[in-house]
Amino acid sequence: MVDVSPPKWHLGHTTWFFENFILANADSSYQLFDKRFNYIFNSYYVSQGDRLSRGNRVSLNRPKLESILAYREHVDQAMEILLNQNNLSDELLNLFEIGLNHEQQHQELLVTDIKYIFSQNPLMPSFQDDEKVQPEPKTKEIEFLKIEEGVYQIGHDSEEFCFDNEKGRHKVYLHEFEFQNRLVNNQEFLEFINNKGYEKPELWLSEGWDWVQENRICAPEYWIKSGKQWQVFTVFGLRDLNLSDTLTRISFYEAKAFARWKGMRLLTEQEWEVACIKFGVNSELNHFQESNCFHLGAAKDNQLMGSNWEWTNSAYLPYPKYEQAAGALGEYNGKFMVNQMVLRGGSCATPKSHFRPSYRNFFHPQLRWQFTGIRLAKK
Amino acid sequence: MVDVSPPKWHLGHTTWFFENFILANADSSYQLFDKRFNYIFNSYYVSQGDRLSRGNRVSLNRPKLESILAYREHVDQAMEILLNQNNLSDELLNLFEIGLNHEQQHQELLVTDIKYIFSQNPLMPSFQDDEKVQPEPKTKEIEFLKIEEGVYQIGHDSEEFCFDNEKGRHKVYLHEFEFQNRLVNNQEFLEFINNKGYEKPELWLSEGWDWVQENRICAPEYWIKSGKQWQVFTVFGLRDLNLSDTLTRISFYEAKAFARWKGMRLLTEQEWEVACIKFGVNSELNHFQESNCFHLGAAKDNQLMGSNWEWTNSAYLPYPKYEQAAGALGEYNGKFMVNQMVLRGGSCATPKSHFRPSYRNFFHPQLRWQFTGIRLAKK
Amino acid sequence: MVDVSPPKWHLGHTTWFFENFILANADSSYQLFDKRFNYIFNSYYVSQGDRLSRGNRVSLNRPKLESILAYREHVDQAMEILLNQNNLSDELLNLFEIGLNHEQQHQELLVTDIKYIFSQNPLMPSFQDDEKVQPEPKTKEIEFLKIEEGVYQIGHDSEEFCFDNEKGRHKVYLHEFEFQNRLVNNQEFLEFINNKGYEKPELWLSEGWDWVQENRICAPEYWIKSGKQWQVFTVFGLRDLNLSDTLTRISFYEAKAFARWKGMRLLTEQEWEVACIKFGVNSELNHFQESNCFHLGAAKDNQLMGSNWEWTNSAYLPYPKYEQAAGALGEYNGKFMVNQMVLRGGSCATPKSHFRPSYRNFFHPQLRWQFTGIRLAKK
Amino acid sequence: MVDVSPPKWHLGHTTWFFENFILANADSSYQLFDKRFNYIFNSYYVSQGDRLSRGNRVSLNRPKLESILAYREHVDQAMEILLNQNNLSDELLNLFEIGLNHEQQHQELLVTDIKYIFSQNPLMPSFQDDEKVQPEPKTKEIEFLKIEEGVYQIGHDSEEFCFDNEKGRHKVYLHEFEFQNRLVNNQEFLEFINNKGYEKPELWLSEGWDWVQENRICAPEYWIKSGKQWQVFTVFGLRDLNLSDTLTRISFYEAKAFARWKGMRLLTEQEWEVACIKFGVNSELNHFQESNCFHLGAAKDNQLMGSNWEWTNSAYLPYPKYEQAAGALGEYNGKFMVNQMVLRGGSCATPKSHFRPSYRNFFHPQLRWQFTGIRLAKK
Repeated sequence: MVDVSPPKWHLGHTTWFFENFILANADSSYQLFDKRFNYIFNSYYVSQGDRLSRGNRVSLNRPKLESILAYREHVDQAMEILLNQNNLSDELLNLFEIGLNHEQQHQELLVTDIKYIFSQNPLMPSFQDDEKVQPEPKTKEIEFLKIEEGVYQIGHDSEEFCFDNEKGRHKVYLHEFEFQNRLVNNQEFLEFINNKGYEKPELWLSEGWDWVQENRICAPEYWIKSGKQWQVFTVFGLRDLNLSDTLTRISFYEAKAFARWKGMRLLTEQEWEVACIKFGVNSELNHFQESNCFHLGAAKDNQLMGSNWEWTNSAYLPYPKYEQAAGALGEYNGKFMVNQMVLRGGSCATPKSHFRPSYRNFFHPQLRWQFTGIRLAKK
Repeated sequence: MVDVSPPKWHLGHTTWFFENFILANADSSYQLFDKRFNYIFNSYYVSQGDRLSRGNRVSLNRPKLESILAYREHVDQAMEILLNQNNLSDELLNLFEIGLNHEQQHQELLVTDIKYIFSQNPLMPSFQDDEKVQPEPKTKEIEFLKIEEGVYQIGHDSEEFCFDNEKGRHKVYLHEFEFQNRLVNNQEFLEFINNKGYEKPELWLSEGWDWVQENRICAPEYWIKSGKQWQVFTVFGLRDLNLSDTLTRISFYEAKAFARWKGMRLLTEQEWEVACIKFGVNSELNHFQESNCFHLGAAKDNQLMGSNWEWTNSAYLPYPKYEQAAGALGEYNGKFMVNQMVLRGGSCATPKSHFRPSYRNFFHPQLRWQFTGIRLAKK
Repeated sequence: MVDVSPPKWHLGHTTWFFENFILANADSSYQLFDKRFNYIFNSYYVSQGDRLSRGNRVSLNRPKLESILAYREHVDQAMEILLNQNNLSDELLNLFEIGLNHEQQHQELLVTDIKYIFSQNPLMPSFQDDEKVQPEPKTKEIEFLKIEEGVYQIGHDSEEFCFDNEKGRHKVYLHEFEFQNRLVNNQEFLEFINNKGYEKPELWLSEGWDWVQENRICAPEYWIKSGKQWQVFTVFGLRDLNLSDTLTRISFYEAKAFARWKGMRLLTEQEWEVACIKFGVNSELNHFQESNCFHLGAAKDNQLMGSNWEWTNSAYLPYPKYEQAAGALGEYNGKFMVNQMVLRGGSCATPKSHFRPSYRNFFHPQLRWQFTGIRLAKK
Repeated sequence: MVDVSPPKWHLGHTTWFFENFILANADSSYQLFDKRFNYIFNSYYVSQGDRLSRGNRVSLNRPKLESILAYREHVDQAMEILLNQNNLSDELLNLFEIGLNHEQQHQELLVTDIKYIFSQNPLMPSFQDDEKVQPEPKTKEIEFLKIEEGVYQIGHDSEEFCFDNEKGRHKVYLHEFEFQNRLVNNQEFLEFINNKGYEKPELWLSEGWDWVQENRICAPEYWIKSGKQWQVFTVFGLRDLNLSDTLTRISFYEAKAFARWKGMRLLTEQEWEVACIKFGVNSELNHFQESNCFHLGAAKDNQLMGSNWEWTNSAYLPYPKYEQAAGALGEYNGKFMVNQMVLRGGSCATPKSHFRPSYRNFFHPQLRWQFTGIRLAKK
């Protein structure tokens, strides 16, 4: 799958970001570690020259891992020297902050990509021991939370770091809406499957139905039916499906069809942001940085952050007054604003420092190799 | 191209709409003209049974045109008898009104599809005599029109017919904006070409740039460079490009790149609708029903209607409280609400009765066989 | 399917052959009917300039049939004047003879292409009335005919016309072999199907098995199972399968698998030619020029000619000393000598004057829209 | 490229051959090392159950190399115990011999696959030091060797091992022919390039020309033009092209076009075998087992063996009386007998014990990642 990159590549690419955008510009005496790396570790920055296409990253049997680790060491040392200097420009410090946030984004991708790569191996290997995981037998009762009609403000609203696509704080008019106090779980989605939800075209968007037919989709990613028992491929290998666990690895198409089957809908990203500001960042994170273990248990809180990315029914588009930067950093977010849907919240694999109400993630509607789930709202 | 159908098929499909949704339900004694027609003339209504795929419509060398005209005659007569009855239900009358509007939509498609089919023929035939066309040497001066910040209402607002996707009148918050009083013309777009706009990735959405590269796009649809002279394939055959004519046959990708090159942007569909209500439906239509000739001349008015469909920067998504009907008519609009962009206004080929501020047209961002153009707004 | 062309195109192409290769060269005063026709009616002669690709021939909604018939009339008249001259060169007369044989080849294609085009229409129209056809209830008993081991000569051996690929008469060494005195019939092939021949990979060439899997092949072209009854799409429309009729519309892959299932094999083209010389051209032709009807009945003679093209197990390759002509006519046969298999004999749609033991037909192994069948030989 | 497998896979697959075909059958107490390996290391034996598709072999990040080496150790030990028993059946000993020859075939593939994989890496790494290589400045003068017309015998003719496709010794009739006493070299092929051979459709088979156009082929595999200097990617990395070196990495299409350009032709496989028997296995091998270095120098002998595989103009087809074995070993050769061309001789990477006049190698005509070259014959 073209969206997934080899782990080694993530290590090289995040390092290249610092070398290419900071060291190569800020320090005229800096020696590139290997000038050929610009070609292989540039992801999609057209302004930075020719680059290896995504689909060809698998060809990188060389450089070996040791060389890439040496590359990281080389760049880390140079960055350390640079950062110890006085009088660094705001622009450089800004780039440095973006570089750190960028690397954190790739930490999340690294986990989900390894998981995907392992899932494609017919031996389905595990990469984590599961002794720590205690399945939660119970989940929260569903309640509906409400937001009143009116004019609200959304968009980033502090001095702290954010990406350019969150900027341009602006007013929106929301009509009253209600939404569930937790995400959909495996039990609920299994009812959709048992009710033949994957076989009823009237529940699906037209392109969603085509996707189901062409790819013979009949369950979430990594679900496998073994006789009468549903199993799921996890970081611990193949395990029986735990019904009270939060549903994950869902495409936008599946989220839409499920909501229609339930007679409900997804939130827009504006609704979600207002809801998150009011009903708060949860305090019972069950995510990697807490538990050292990738596992979505049963809901204990509102799950607004730290469980799954939530598909919204908003297309990824610029905010009013959005300014796409000139040059390479203008390529970071702005050029992807078509044919993708916004996800909000953050998952168990997302770095904790990325959790904020205004954060906008985005993927194509058929993708489901990330931790992605469903929150229902009343029509 | 899969979006284009043979002319014969449009005739059969619009007839089938009346037969299948009205006659077959309302009149138990009605005899289907040919029961196999349900398979070949059903477009995309999954609920109405199996159907011929779009790509296979070219296989319909039979039925011959005479048979399809006989089919239309048969259905017309049965409809006339039915409509002369008393006590017709509101539901039936509603379906009849949809059927008429549906056929009018296909009248527009018929024109643009024939044009496209002729353009694919290496002999590039014409289908209209051009004697009536007098090129306009001059166009309007550009001015900027303004809408004030505030809460506005959009969505259909009368007793007259509209499609379901226009319903659910609701409030939106708009920030102040300004937009041009006419559409972009050939002269302005030629400057973009001459300035190597098609060769500058930084102007393009990422998927737009891929589209340009893969399809080697270097000009609008039907533009052909012959030596140093640009020509354009029209309904009159190949003609020299008239610089003051309104630009048409543009994809969303090209519209976005052009706007970025100009340092401006496209309107959202909400902005467009409020602008249209304020600055009015034009009175100087130069479109087919007036002139009996498909020709986009130079701008004489605001061109808000009757010239080109205008690409907005809004994705095609449901309005708040949008209700997707159950059954077949629920398939008419709702199931296409992903991966498409909204177009507003109406073109010279659009039936006049379809012109209204709330009308929402939608296409995939790469498509450009319709009359589609660009209106610029200030950032 | 790219191998199939619109009927109109065949009419234009065969006319173009005379205009382009004879009139345009032989008569300096000759006026091309339409100079754009060289582009649209050149099939594959790279030396004759750019041409419309095969897959785009469907775009030829223009010229209309009347124009093409006028083209034929124009060329026919010019040819008649030319041929009435004295002192025509041998080269011109040779080209004229090739042109006639070329047109006869396209007469056969015209029939099989129309049949294929009709089969793709979901209405499956017929183009011939079937009143003349009396199904034969009985077929010949199978016997084995024998050829002795030894050195034989093959290749064209007379003053009459032949194509260049038949020339270069040469010696071959054949080992003794025996072969059946008629072609395989529907009954015999139905046993293969009922014995699950299409589900047994061990019977198939590897690429044949891939072809079966990818295209979900489970019967000969045009066979359709309706409940428990096999039907077949014929020129008379859909009819019940007649078991004693000769099997036709078979790919090389199916012929190979069937022969392996029977513990037998196909002939080589050298064996076939020697067999045909000895066991003779049949005298009971049941083919179009006799019966005015395309119908393969039950075998009454050896069926060496006039029933089906027979797949041989020989690849299409040059004979020893084969000379590929320079220029356009060198493109006629020689450039196709890879990845195709030789067929021998001639079918019910082949012009009678083409029947000769040395005639070499050739197709890719998966193709089966021609009248193609199977003759078995002992291992 | 689907024909190329990861090195690890070759190690596992050749081991699986012994385990699956010998140990699992011969020794009822034998424990499979890992029963999942049948799925991942079965290449194309349909009779041996489901298997990983070729294109998915890249997914095998697990098992790690250590596990595969342990697998080899496990199987080697079990084979040693088995072979030390008395009374082993002829069938088992035959399978053992096939297994050894099979592994030797994969040794050759291992080398060419690694080379190919490295060539796809944009860094183009080397895997061998080049200090041993001394370019030969001179090559042999071309002479023509002659074979007289007559009946000859070909096919395997001894008690030693051979593959099933070489069996069935039989008579063929050959007409007199003459062929060159060495293979084509880089200098000669460069003349073809400089004479625009890749731009002249009249030199090419039709499918060869399509292949050139679609893949933009303009030189042999691994040739790269750097300014005015031709370079070639070798096992030592990128080096300047040595003109007197033997040409290699050529497709059948290129071989055919080159021969046509020269006014000559390729040999048939029957001609080659008779020529090889007469003009002998060379004694000056410059191949891996001699030199420990993969390098095709200038011709010093007839190069009938140990330099390049030579494309013949014969399609890969069964010999008369060829018996395709039942069961798995029947899949070894017989099921590939369509759409491939025969290569004869053996290359510098071929195990020496495989050199024999009757050996038949075969590839699709567009493939050129093996050591493949051209020998010219007079028409």
